[in-house]
Amino acid sequence: MIDFNIILFDDFETLDAFGPAEIIGIVPEIYKLDYFSLHGKTVTSSQNIRVTTKPFSDMNPEGVLLIPGGMGTRALVNDADFIHELNTIAHKAAFVLTVCTGSALLAKTGMLDGRPATSNKMAFEWVQSVNTKVDWVKHARWVADGNCYTSSGVSAGMDMTLGFVGDIHGQDIAKRIADDIEYIWNSNKNFDPFAL
Amino acid sequence: MIDFNIILFDDFETLDAFGPAEIIGIVPEIYKLDYFSLHGKTVTSSQNIRVTTKPFSDMNPEGVLLIPGGMGTRALVNDADFIHELNTIAHKAAFVLTVCTGSALLAKTGMLDGRPATSNKMAFEWVQSVNTKVDWVKHARWVADGNCYTSSGVSAGMDMTLGFVGDIHGQDIAKRIADDIEYIWNSNKNFDPFAL
Repeated sequence: MIDFNIILFDDFETLDAFGPAEIIGIVPEIYKLDYFSLHGKTVTSSQNIRVTTKPFSDMNPEGVLLIPGGMGTRALVNDADFIHELNTIAHKAAFVLTVCTGSALLAKTGMLDGRPATSNKMAFEWVQSVNTKVDWVKHARWVADGNCYTSSGVSAGMDMTLGFVGDIHGQDIAKRIADDIEYIWNSNKNFDPFAL
Repeated sequence: MIDFNIILFDDFETLDAFGPAEIIGIVPEIYKLDYFSLHGKTVTSSQNIRVTTKPFSDMNPEGVLLIPGGMGTRALVNDADFIHELNTIAHKAAFVLTVCTGSALLAKTGMLDGRPATSNKMAFEWVQSVNTKVDWVKHARWVADGNCYTSSGVSAGMDMTLGFVGDIHGQDIAKRIADDIEYIWNSNKNFDPFAL
């Protein structure tokens, strides 16, 4: 059983976190899902969902880490304590997945330096400004580089998570999950109809 | 401002509720989102998300009501107290939207008797058995009938919610929301690649 750890914070974007959670939750024989915030408080998404979390210190970080985006990332990139702790858990993770502006948080740790990555297209200039040492890719539904997967905005996180499952566990399992949740999967990471 | 009330219960399917929440949250100038359970407890989704809710008694029901599906519906269709209270708030709502097996809960109230409705394709036989007086539609991404919108499984709820917004507020707004969240919208309610 692999731990699939989703981190949350105030003003996270709901679907960034819970679209991938839906997908991963279809294969409980492979993954154990849980939700963490730095200090384990109740956090509220930008869509007013109040979620109980566990603290980072309760996490087994040696699994998969998913970092959502959202307006909350704007403050968090400047929160040295948060970035320090994120850096620690991200380096222990087997894989790190980011959705939307979640890639700005991962970029701030330095883990994406010199590597290709993408983000939300409407927030792209801001994300680039967070760390110019990243090879930011403007046209991509998602980017896979070694153990780091980064997706475009919001809904792209679901396509990326299915792509991740396909890469690691086989396309048949990814396709079966998409069918189970009646999801019309864009399985081509280079097809990005929202690129500017 | 219109209240968009999402009801939750233990073992609700995450994306059924939070896919539509993501869409509605993009237009806070139109809708106020909140989350309710019968008694206002913390409820846990099938994907292990622990959500703080308000009780039905705190709801202004004269808005839009969204009912998700999930394994929790199997017990709830036989919970007379829950169905009684659901019937009360559903009859006060301007519109009622259901996702996946959420239509089984609405069907149990009698509100869909003699009307067309749809549901998750893999649970279709069970949903039909809950109330045979409903005109169950096997091939539909979603069905709109007066003030009742019912969708197929899980992801179909996002397409339906955008369709609802388009019907009520105009296609331009629905399209803008889809673009904002980089969502590849299946806007044709009759295109159902998962029909059996």
